[in-house]
Amino acid sequence: MASSSPTSTAETIAIAARRAFEESQLVEEKERDVALTAIQEVLTRHKDEVLTANKKDMEAAQALAEERKLSSSLVSRLDLSRPGKYEAMIRGVSDVAALPAPTGIVTFAKELGPGLELHRVTCPIGVLLVIFEARPEVVVNIAALAIKSGNAAILKGGKESLNTSTILSSLISTALSKTSIPSTFVQSVSTRSEISSLLAQDKYIDLVMPRGGNALVSSIKNSTRIPVMGHADGICAVYLDETAVEEKAIRVVVESKIDYMAACNSAETLLLHPSTLSTIWPKVALALISHSITLKCDPQSLSALSSISSSSTLIKPSIPEDYTTEFLGPTIAIAVVPSIHAAIQHINQHSSHHTDSIVTESFENMSIWCKGLDSANCFINVSTRFADGTRYGLGTEVGISTGKTHARGPVGLDGLVIYKYILRSVNDGGNIIADFEKGSKGYTHIDIPKVIPF
Amino acid sequence: MASSSPTSTAETIAIAARRAFEESQLVEEKERDVALTAIQEVLTRHKDEVLTANKKDMEAAQALAEERKLSSSLVSRLDLSRPGKYEAMIRGVSDVAALPAPTGIVTFAKELGPGLELHRVTCPIGVLLVIFEARPEVVVNIAALAIKSGNAAILKGGKESLNTSTILSSLISTALSKTSIPSTFVQSVSTRSEISSLLAQDKYIDLVMPRGGNALVSSIKNSTRIPVMGHADGICAVYLDETAVEEKAIRVVVESKIDYMAACNSAETLLLHPSTLSTIWPKVALALISHSITLKCDPQSLSALSSISSSSTLIKPSIPEDYTTEFLGPTIAIAVVPSIHAAIQHINQHSSHHTDSIVTESFENMSIWCKGLDSANCFINVSTRFADGTRYGLGTEVGISTGKTHARGPVGLDGLVIYKYILRSVNDGGNIIADFEKGSKGYTHIDIPKVIPF
Repeated sequence: MASSSPTSTAETIAIAARRAFEESQLVEEKERDVALTAIQEVLTRHKDEVLTANKKDMEAAQALAEERKLSSSLVSRLDLSRPGKYEAMIRGVSDVAALPAPTGIVTFAKELGPGLELHRVTCPIGVLLVIFEARPEVVVNIAALAIKSGNAAILKGGKESLNTSTILSSLISTALSKTSIPSTFVQSVSTRSEISSLLAQDKYIDLVMPRGGNALVSSIKNSTRIPVMGHADGICAVYLDETAVEEKAIRVVVESKIDYMAACNSAETLLLHPSTLSTIWPKVALALISHSITLKCDPQSLSALSSISSSSTLIKPSIPEDYTTEFLGPTIAIAVVPSIHAAIQHINQHSSHHTDSIVTESFENMSIWCKGLDSANCFINVSTRFADGTRYGLGTEVGISTGKTHARGPVGLDGLVIYKYILRSVNDGGNIIADFEKGSKGYTHIDIPKVIPF
Repeated sequence: MASSSPTSTAETIAIAARRAFEESQLVEEKERDVALTAIQEVLTRHKDEVLTANKKDMEAAQALAEERKLSSSLVSRLDLSRPGKYEAMIRGVSDVAALPAPTGIVTFAKELGPGLELHRVTCPIGVLLVIFEARPEVVVNIAALAIKSGNAAILKGGKESLNTSTILSSLISTALSKTSIPSTFVQSVSTRSEISSLLAQDKYIDLVMPRGGNALVSSIKNSTRIPVMGHADGICAVYLDETAVEEKAIRVVVESKIDYMAACNSAETLLLHPSTLSTIWPKVALALISHSITLKCDPQSLSALSSISSSSTLIKPSIPEDYTTEFLGPTIAIAVVPSIHAAIQHINQHSSHHTDSIVTESFENMSIWCKGLDSANCFINVSTRFADGTRYGLGTEVGISTGKTHARGPVGLDGLVIYKYILRSVNDGGNIIADFEKGSKGYTHIDIPKVIPF
């Protein structure tokens, strides 16, 4: 019996989420914003209790960190008591409430024939399972995104933030219980065994969103039939072509590498056209070295630095693995490629299809770049660090997807919706296909205004 | 070594597809139509050879059918020699060529800040793995859709059509070899063992499209990390509410059930409001009986037919499984539900979220229906048989998806594309985030014309 218990718990949670989603579909869209306001109020009122729970998590984490069982960066990500952090978390909820709802938008409308109207309308996906690591404020963040988009959510945080996420999650339920949104619209689970059982609930759960590293995403994809939207690693490249201008090259390469080295949109690879070797490459290299970046160079780019290399320990030969490594730190891999076609081929075969930028003055190369590159974000003369939902003006960011279906690149609220088709007979124009295919009426397929019929 | 051979074959095929996809991205869009024309010509010229190969498949299949090892309907689906069938297959290619390309469409365009422009442009997904059953013409159909949308494809047909699909596939390669599209853009594999190895090639294959029954889709989802777009079963319902009008009810119910009983958009369930039991239900029942449909009734709907039931052997009591069964034949399950809310709940919990239709004169119920129903196609006073890409005016149909991500309902060519973001600095407006976040410039996020920059 013991072994059946996690499954039945998981099934109970998944069914409750499904029912909450179904019930909520008849609730008016504006009630979702009312629910978000209620969450803000409850979180503001219970700040002290949340911080008390957070202190417990912090103490346990610090003890583990002292035993070197946990990294100190993870401990700092756990901390909700840093000045302004709690308020920023609450402000996040009102920011989401202020966005336009991604649902109820007509994206396609046609008269199929006389008196027969088809509308394609955006709607929530259904039930989301979100798996994330340390930061406990993600509970609030995801709850807000789920409610705004009309999706029910099941959340699983890291075990280090258990006390904090449990109280945040219970406060969210309390807030929801006073609104038209079911209190089981957002639920939390705490143990790993529950996750594997939840991953089997493809009857009730529509989408899994792992927010963590490559290993997490990959292991989840291996263990579920539910579609997965996650981002794996970010191996981004910058390519300097034969027309690249020095100042622009330095600005783009340096910021792409050094601005925030742990980010997935930071550059890990620099590709060079041979003609840059004797012109701008040494200057770009010096700029990187001045920021203490290690350059792992292929033979050609290395020998082009022979005059500098004796004076810097940061210049090293590369190995093949460097070109498929997400360094997430002060290292960049350099390779010389004979042409833009070779640069594109190198990136398509080594990168993670996330974000890659060319520095060029050639219109032709810009066009080849954007067509040939199989990456979510194809950039021209700009830093890879622009690849971000907020910078793109998407309002908020659900994540950055390196997948090739549903949503790609920075994903905003519209990545949490799908659509349904609504077909209706207007003024009894025709009810059956025989009217159109055997009777006097014919299909017209004329565009009509994109106005929601209900 | 023997066991490594299918994997390495699969990997070789997958890599070849990937490279063909990458190479083709620099080929102009109009060259895809040139390739489609070349395919038409080759297929026309080699009709006799194809029919000779098809005859071999037919003879083998007929022999198996005589031994009752294969159904006769499968044998008839194999047959390409029936009058007009070969020509229809070729016409399918020109129909696809005539459609607008789904790629290169700007769906979002914003100035992020002065001199910084973002465009979201539709593009092919990459490499498709399509697994289908008997009908050999699917090879040509899918090849055309893949080429038109710019996706490379690996095809696996049923073993019964092996001779036919092999020659069709080789003729397609021959045709492509004379165009700008790589000849490995469309490849075929023939054995089941290759499929399982291909399902492991998530590095090179972006989407799996199983075109077959529920069991096929489900088994594929269980054995791959690659996203799957397939349709499982179609358990569709019609609901007659308290305002339903007799003639409309009979037209919608009868056509939804009898027009093409093996189709996924045929009705399998009929839900009744209690007020219809003494009014229109007996007439609807008689209409169905006149078409030899067996009615599997719950106690309420059964007793409402007491005056008829003695004279018809087609009226029977239902069992719970009837409401989750795809009969695909002359049977329909009937249940009485107390309200539209109960009807929606019944459908959300029993149907396959495919297509469900209400017969009503109530505007309020139409609105509740479309909001509450979690189905791809929510219909009002129309036959479920309208759920079809061609009838929707999508040009052609890739399939009908019962999934909740990427594409839902009838999927046209636009279900075979995703998008990439193109961000560029215009007139050197700004190259790095520091210009906008620490410098004098700010983000503007203004809509700009949706015109492709390249």
